[in-house]
Amino acid sequence: MNLYQTYVAKMHKIADVNHAIAVLGWDQEVHLPEKGAHHRAQQIATLAGMVHEMAVSAELEDLLGKLSEDESLTFEQQRNIAETKKHIDRRKKLPVNFVVQLTKAVSATYQAWMKARSANHGEGDFTLFAPQLKQLVDLKREETTCIGYADHPYDALIDEFEPGEKTADLTVLFADVRRQLVDFVKEIHHQPQVEDHWMFEHYDKDRQWHFGLELLKQMGYDFKAGRQDISAHPFTTSFSMHDVRVTTRINEHDLHEMIWGCLHEGGHALYEQGLLPDNYGLPSGSYVSLGIHESQSRLWENNVGRSLPYWKANYAQLQAQFPERLANVPLEAFYKSMNKVNPSLIRTNADELTYHFHILVRFEIEKALIEGSVEVNDLRELWNQKYKEYLDVTVPNDRKGVLQDIHWSHGSFGYFATYSLGSFYAAQFFHQASKDIPYLQTLIEHGNLQPLLQWLRTNIHQYGQLYPAEELCKRITGEKLNFKYFMEYARQKYSFIYNLR
Amino acid sequence: MNLYQTYVAKMHKIADVNHAIAVLGWDQEVHLPEKGAHHRAQQIATLAGMVHEMAVSAELEDLLGKLSEDESLTFEQQRNIAETKKHIDRRKKLPVNFVVQLTKAVSATYQAWMKARSANHGEGDFTLFAPQLKQLVDLKREETTCIGYADHPYDALIDEFEPGEKTADLTVLFADVRRQLVDFVKEIHHQPQVEDHWMFEHYDKDRQWHFGLELLKQMGYDFKAGRQDISAHPFTTSFSMHDVRVTTRINEHDLHEMIWGCLHEGGHALYEQGLLPDNYGLPSGSYVSLGIHESQSRLWENNVGRSLPYWKANYAQLQAQFPERLANVPLEAFYKSMNKVNPSLIRTNADELTYHFHILVRFEIEKALIEGSVEVNDLRELWNQKYKEYLDVTVPNDRKGVLQDIHWSHGSFGYFATYSLGSFYAAQFFHQASKDIPYLQTLIEHGNLQPLLQWLRTNIHQYGQLYPAEELCKRITGEKLNFKYFMEYARQKYSFIYNLR
Repeated sequence: MNLYQTYVAKMHKIADVNHAIAVLGWDQEVHLPEKGAHHRAQQIATLAGMVHEMAVSAELEDLLGKLSEDESLTFEQQRNIAETKKHIDRRKKLPVNFVVQLTKAVSATYQAWMKARSANHGEGDFTLFAPQLKQLVDLKREETTCIGYADHPYDALIDEFEPGEKTADLTVLFADVRRQLVDFVKEIHHQPQVEDHWMFEHYDKDRQWHFGLELLKQMGYDFKAGRQDISAHPFTTSFSMHDVRVTTRINEHDLHEMIWGCLHEGGHALYEQGLLPDNYGLPSGSYVSLGIHESQSRLWENNVGRSLPYWKANYAQLQAQFPERLANVPLEAFYKSMNKVNPSLIRTNADELTYHFHILVRFEIEKALIEGSVEVNDLRELWNQKYKEYLDVTVPNDRKGVLQDIHWSHGSFGYFATYSLGSFYAAQFFHQASKDIPYLQTLIEHGNLQPLLQWLRTNIHQYGQLYPAEELCKRITGEKLNFKYFMEYARQKYSFIYNLR
Repeated sequence: MNLYQTYVAKMHKIADVNHAIAVLGWDQEVHLPEKGAHHRAQQIATLAGMVHEMAVSAELEDLLGKLSEDESLTFEQQRNIAETKKHIDRRKKLPVNFVVQLTKAVSATYQAWMKARSANHGEGDFTLFAPQLKQLVDLKREETTCIGYADHPYDALIDEFEPGEKTADLTVLFADVRRQLVDFVKEIHHQPQVEDHWMFEHYDKDRQWHFGLELLKQMGYDFKAGRQDISAHPFTTSFSMHDVRVTTRINEHDLHEMIWGCLHEGGHALYEQGLLPDNYGLPSGSYVSLGIHESQSRLWENNVGRSLPYWKANYAQLQAQFPERLANVPLEAFYKSMNKVNPSLIRTNADELTYHFHILVRFEIEKALIEGSVEVNDLRELWNQKYKEYLDVTVPNDRKGVLQDIHWSHGSFGYFATYSLGSFYAAQFFHQASKDIPYLQTLIEHGNLQPLLQWLRTNIHQYGQLYPAEELCKRITGEKLNFKYFMEYARQKYSFIYNLR
């Protein structure tokens, strides 16, 4: 074995254990009997500890050092070495004691969050969460010092989820969101609201389930390399490109959850199934960033799955499944109802446009917290004020407000922005795909989604981390992420739906 | 942390990884999409390698050395150290190169077995299996030399599955089986056969499934610490005493498979759920031997589950589920039909009595192979001849003969005997339980199985490996394993069923 092969073998071993953790995590969400939770958490922690030991081992460091200077490596091999080194250097910057302290703080903060949410007769009480959150924010600020940064401390945290993305760029991006999207949504709100009551009538669970499976098949999700199950919170997980699993949730009184949940998770899964088997365990066999991952889920969920052509192909089938609900709802009315814009309190229920105001609130708050310009104790007030300003809604209690998301209790600061990045990348990619694929709309109208999937495979999936997000975007579209594609998409689509101009 | 606590922490870590392997294995049998098999096998192999590294590490050896001489330890602590040491010493006796060679040979032999089974238009062809099997038998004989033995090389292999059991004792035991049980079955076969055609009529899958769940609940299987799923081959697996899972198989045209499969796996699972949480990862928190494990499954399957009192409690419920099949079948006829004795070709379909002839054949063959008194090339002839002699059946082809079991292709020599040991221990334990628990038959007739479960918990489950099998048996019943209890049970039960004397 040459040095590079030795490196690959070590990476395979690390990947095997990471995927074992993923299996244990999947089982935990889908099947775990209630008494099994304690030992399961311990088993995952043990495996995670072993991954850490392997990742920071002196042999691997030595190997990476030598391979970094080996000019005979191919471009792809060099990229793998560089990305692995970057990942491990980041790990090593956090002292073991600090990681232990952080892990304990996360656990305590999560417990406090759970308790605070159900306090006050289920309306939530932020003051029960604040002390733990404050301690965790302090540790995350300490983490930015350990990791280091050139411009802004928040950069050090964003980098974990969206490598290369900067606070400065996101600030410009979200200023655009605030300026352009807030105004556009106000325009929409001067128009008569679309009808959507049929979405909340009764839809049988089994029939929903089978319809969802058909949608996944039509997308090209490979059921020989994956499966769908039910879980409380839908997610996608991968144990290799040959075993990528999705979960869904079915609400018999809200058709949105299953349909667009399936398309969303299906989009994530197609990315994972499209990574190349030869690159198993290597950066070239892993997704680029959370933003790019989310671009795949959003593209299928929104750009495809909430489009008129897509439902020209699929609506008759849905009507046939639920004639008593939808036989008298025309296609165009159904299309408008799935795209109803309605500012609301809860991020995960938000429509495609106002969703980004929820992210805007969180981005501004996180940035301020990490740079130290606001205090945890002021969060509730700040949250409620921003929701009034951007979404024009009044937050009635903490559970529907500042306590609604799990992310902060997990110490995930820098994560939320990737949701918006995903939508914006999706719009830009879909715009390009529409130029590259002749008659894309017509193909979609006929239920032929394979040319689009092939385009994504060719332009995105196959590369893994071969190119960083910004470069990947440039290679595909000729420019880096540009918010105008999302705004163009939004204006065109919603002008029709809301009869603007 | 004192030395013993350090030992416990290391054992926890090993157990966590072993249980992760078990989760991956369970998922493989229950859920794995077909393309996922290759990476899953690799992931399991990686984790197994890590367990091996931890088990044979110098630190653990050093720790065990010191603790072996620590006289301040409690009896239980001393037992844990002694059993761990024994287990690890066995591991260390096999050179790494030998283990690699053995693993490869097992893989090749398994492939050859699969191929040989489907050869000859599905009738099987032993000659395609023989060369690989010969190589594997040679390696297993080499293994006996590495492990070492006092009396018989086969002892070294048996010890892996049934610690402390000896070839000499098993030879005496199976001589009893041959002498007493073969004659008794001949007596039975002079009597008119019992009727059982209703067992093979159509029984709806869903209704069988729900009936099986009720049986598991009634036994005391804790669904908050486990679950049942469907798999091709039923099994029980444990991820901790708080997550012990069973699987079953439903045949719509054979009622036996689901009902007595559930009771069998349920019996295994009750043992695992009955180990003490404080002993997680330690010998005192693990089963004694495969024979004792099988005693639990057989006791519930046969001594309880094929008894008249048990069906006095449950038959009305079964009839209510399947009135069109069983409304006109009286309880006594149903009871006799589930206990029909009928020598046949396939071990896994055998009745409670002739089952042991199948094991007798395999025991005699394995013993001869390992001591070198027969050759692999003679196996087919030997097999067919013994089936004629003990079961009076003619083997029509290799698939229904010498190729029927997976065990040899896995290199599991010394395993089969534990199935018979399980039944014989079960008879002896149940005999004792009937003396210890007032009105046991009446309790069972009323569907109250909890006193019996409590007796098993108190006398067997809670101890884990605190006492070796023979000693455990003596503590419970006052004597070591004695075949007479099984023969008494058999004579009494089957004299009634077949109107003997």
